Amino acid sequence: MTTTVARASFDFSGTTTVITGGASGIGLSCAEAIARAGGGVIISSSRNPAKTDAALQRLRALAPGVPMSAHPCEVGDEASVAGFFGAIAAGGARVDHLIHSAGVSPNTDFLAQTQAEWDQVHNINATGSFLVTKHAAGLMRHNEPVEGWRGRIVLITSTNGINSNDPVSAHYDSSKAGNNMLVRNAAEALAPLGIVVNGLAPGWINTALNATLPPEVRARESAKIWMQRWAEPGEVATAALHVLTLPYYMAQVLLVDGGYR
Amino acid sequence: MTTTVARASFDFSGTTTVITGGASGIGLSCAEAIARAGGGVIISSSRNPAKTDAALQRLRALAPGVPMSAHPCEVGDEASVAGFFGAIAAGGARVDHLIHSAGVSPNTDFLAQTQAEWDQVHNINATGSFLVTKHAAGLMRHNEPVEGWRGRIVLITSTNGINSNDPVSAHYDSSKAGNNMLVRNAAEALAPLGIVVNGLAPGWINTALNATLPPEVRARESAKIWMQRWAEPGEVATAALHVLTLPYYMAQVLLVDGGYR
Amino acid sequence: MTTTVARASFDFSGTTTVITGGASGIGLSCAEAIARAGGGVIISSSRNPAKTDAALQRLRALAPGVPMSAHPCEVGDEASVAGFFGAIAAGGARVDHLIHSAGVSPNTDFLAQTQAEWDQVHNINATGSFLVTKHAAGLMRHNEPVEGWRGRIVLITSTNGINSNDPVSAHYDSSKAGNNMLVRNAAEALAPLGIVVNGLAPGWINTALNATLPPEVRARESAKIWMQRWAEPGEVATAALHVLTLPYYMAQVLLVDGGYR
Amino acid sequence: MTTTVARASFDFSGTTTVITGGASGIGLSCAEAIARAGGGVIISSSRNPAKTDAALQRLRALAPGVPMSAHPCEVGDEASVAGFFGAIAAGGARVDHLIHSAGVSPNTDFLAQTQAEWDQVHNINATGSFLVTKHAAGLMRHNEPVEGWRGRIVLITSTNGINSNDPVSAHYDSSKAGNNMLVRNAAEALAPLGIVVNGLAPGWINTALNATLPPEVRARESAKIWMQRWAEPGEVATAALHVLTLPYYMAQVLLVDGGYR
Repeated sequence: MTTTVARASFDFSGTTTVITGGASGIGLSCAEAIARAGGGVIISSSRNPAKTDAALQRLRALAPGVPMSAHPCEVGDEASVAGFFGAIAAGGARVDHLIHSAGVSPNTDFLAQTQAEWDQVHNINATGSFLVTKHAAGLMRHNEPVEGWRGRIVLITSTNGINSNDPVSAHYDSSKAGNNMLVRNAAEALAPLGIVVNGLAPGWINTALNATLPPEVRARESAKIWMQRWAEPGEVATAALHVLTLPYYMAQVLLVDGGYR
Repeated sequence: MTTTVARASFDFSGTTTVITGGASGIGLSCAEAIARAGGGVIISSSRNPAKTDAALQRLRALAPGVPMSAHPCEVGDEASVAGFFGAIAAGGARVDHLIHSAGVSPNTDFLAQTQAEWDQVHNINATGSFLVTKHAAGLMRHNEPVEGWRGRIVLITSTNGINSNDPVSAHYDSSKAGNNMLVRNAAEALAPLGIVVNGLAPGWINTALNATLPPEVRARESAKIWMQRWAEPGEVATAALHVLTLPYYMAQVLLVDGGYR
Repeated sequence: MTTTVARASFDFSGTTTVITGGASGIGLSCAEAIARAGGGVIISSSRNPAKTDAALQRLRALAPGVPMSAHPCEVGDEASVAGFFGAIAAGGARVDHLIHSAGVSPNTDFLAQTQAEWDQVHNINATGSFLVTKHAAGLMRHNEPVEGWRGRIVLITSTNGINSNDPVSAHYDSSKAGNNMLVRNAAEALAPLGIVVNGLAPGWINTALNATLPPEVRARESAKIWMQRWAEPGEVATAALHVLTLPYYMAQVLLVDGGYR
Repeated sequence: MTTTVARASFDFSGTTTVITGGASGIGLSCAEAIARAGGGVIISSSRNPAKTDAALQRLRALAPGVPMSAHPCEVGDEASVAGFFGAIAAGGARVDHLIHSAGVSPNTDFLAQTQAEWDQVHNINATGSFLVTKHAAGLMRHNEPVEGWRGRIVLITSTNGINSNDPVSAHYDSSKAGNNMLVRNAAEALAPLGIVVNGLAPGWINTALNATLPPEVRARESAKIWMQRWAEPGEVATAALHVLTLPYYMAQVLLVDGGYR
């Protein structure tokens, strides 16, 4: 009888991945997974320089000698996004992959949500996802094709935009439903340029942010998960590497929710 | 052999419906259908006063003696939305229904879309839909229940948020996918207050706006419609009256697209 | 302040509707609603002749002088289905509408379901829906068009094929997911023949069958319904009349589930 | 500049995978991919013994020394399915994975499809998928858990059950929509037993079967694929290995369609 389990492993050596929100949370987990697979990573800086430095140190320790860097990027501001990719281009790296993880997720009672909150959530999550996709594609389209493709994009969206919506995150859920739709439009627009676009929608993840949820929300949501546990951030990161290597996979949003209803 | 066809007819007498975007397009068609069914209508004014006056005259001619009025409302500005519903409340009418039809739908090549365009589309279409829903609910919740309900809301969304997305309307499609999600969250949040929320997603409609589409887009899209024709605005309006009267119908988006792929 | 509510009413006079499963349950409710709207109805007989007679008496009382009849039809047996529509054709009625409501819905623990059960459920629910659609279309295609169409078909499917699936009804849910797909294929195939096809998926309905559910299932499911009650069969019937009269409505499945998650 | 591309590789050594339909087509491609990853494979025999022998020879050449075997299995006949898994149990292998690929896919004009065709397609595709799942689960549930799970199941379904349906395959599309629903019910029922269930829906694949399609169908469908080519069977096989190793992935159907509309 076996005591083993089937496993995937990944080789990202010789590639460079840009990761927004890569200094913390799911973005950092993705960066670590790629570093562990030998790939170079360029993250958007945290507003907290110590956090950025700590992230770069972890990545360099995981893949000694592989280039790792950070540049500032406010995803909801097109000038900043253009500057971010401009700095990357100036650095000379070929961008093979983008993982767009940056976003905001406030929780407010439905009728207490304000225009300011809605506009901010949509600026950062909806407009920001477009801006990052647009400017990443602006670089990738000049790459030489490898096995037919010039670049691959993964947008981190959310099951909140599909099947775990909640009135307290109506603005967020609206923006994430929009992100899932952007995956379709970006894929159709960018395929002729040699760029693959997909999404990754995580369910409930044991992040620092989610650790602050009220216990009754945690209990209510846990009861809906058929795997009977929440995911670790590293599992979402592994799923992102699957998405980047899955053949013939295009314009789809991969749900990683443990079986949820 | 019959020469007749089964028909629905509607009686909206004694009810009042607020319609944003009611001075033109689908919104005006909905207003006319409700006036024809004997219902009172309050529209948001057009920025063109002549258009507002013309709309009110048509409505009054369809339902002589039934109150019809207009107030200004910029749906992407919470102060203006609050002022709109404040003026309605001051007028003393009980708001039974909301049909939210106001929105913008620019077409721009995918990679040429700018932050300004995205932010505007999401402000008006995504945030605006929330603001109008929120402030309409603020009035409706104080109504006496009739047959168990205090009010009914229909958001006019779009099949572009579901199955007819197109990269040239990536911002619009993103916002409309968000609107379809808002239907779910608003329905869940407002059901306990006695308010029913649904959506109506029209496909290709013979509106003035669509008359300006390039002939090749028109031909390409027409070939996908199984009914082999576009809808008239009056058909979408009739569908809105169906949505407002369908029993046990909640948190759904009704697609009216003639069979499309 | 109003004490009224907006209402739809229906006129089916001069039309004939064939209803499978029309001697009881949702089918009979649909038959009654159409009779009340002045339409003629042809039902498939119950295996219990007394039930068939009682149904016809009720229908005749609702619409005195309007033709009502019944013929035997085993929907999972093509010869029987062909005989049913042959008898209808011989009777000389023009069939304007089909409401296909007949079906079976056993509940058995997932791992205890047998091939016999699965084959029977798929024969009656999946194959049966096709056979009834096919032979109804065979009659309708020879009708003179009225307002562009020769006939309209509504398949009664189920939210179990969409969002309320349950392992104890795995066979049923599989067949109903298949029915929802059949709506699409039948609509595409029959549109060129002048026939409109849609589906109607009821959620939890207060039928005699559902009255036998264990109280804990009833409680668990009720808690998921935002309208906080189950539908009456008459509401599903009204929804069927909406589906038959909704303009530009094609290839869609209308969910009537009170807002469910 | 890189000349490499990120890659996944798989290690299935020490595991055993049962593959129905494993003697040809997508099933054989999956078997080969698993053998290449060092895993043992048990296929259902082809009715053509030479085909079975050829398949086993290929598998043994790919993984010398790893057990490969075949047993007869008619998936639409519960006694045969029980016999298949009984023979596997008698062989002493621990079944870690099931890939269920067997099925039939006739093409017939919509109105020319007969009861015999529908019943056969649903017996083999719908009932067969359940029977194979049920009896595989009957073995897997007695495995010792490895990393929390006793077994993993992948049902090969089809995009025809989602977004590429066609009236000429109405029976097939109905059965495949049912298979996609079975993924949900089986996952919910089997999770407490320690079994993960997912689906894999291939789009257009360069199989021997598809090589016989009329050129105009091939051209029409190719124009809808954003990747502008069909998949190779080996790509679907690789995707199956991704599904079997994706963490926290449950109750989902992975579409591998190259971006299709």
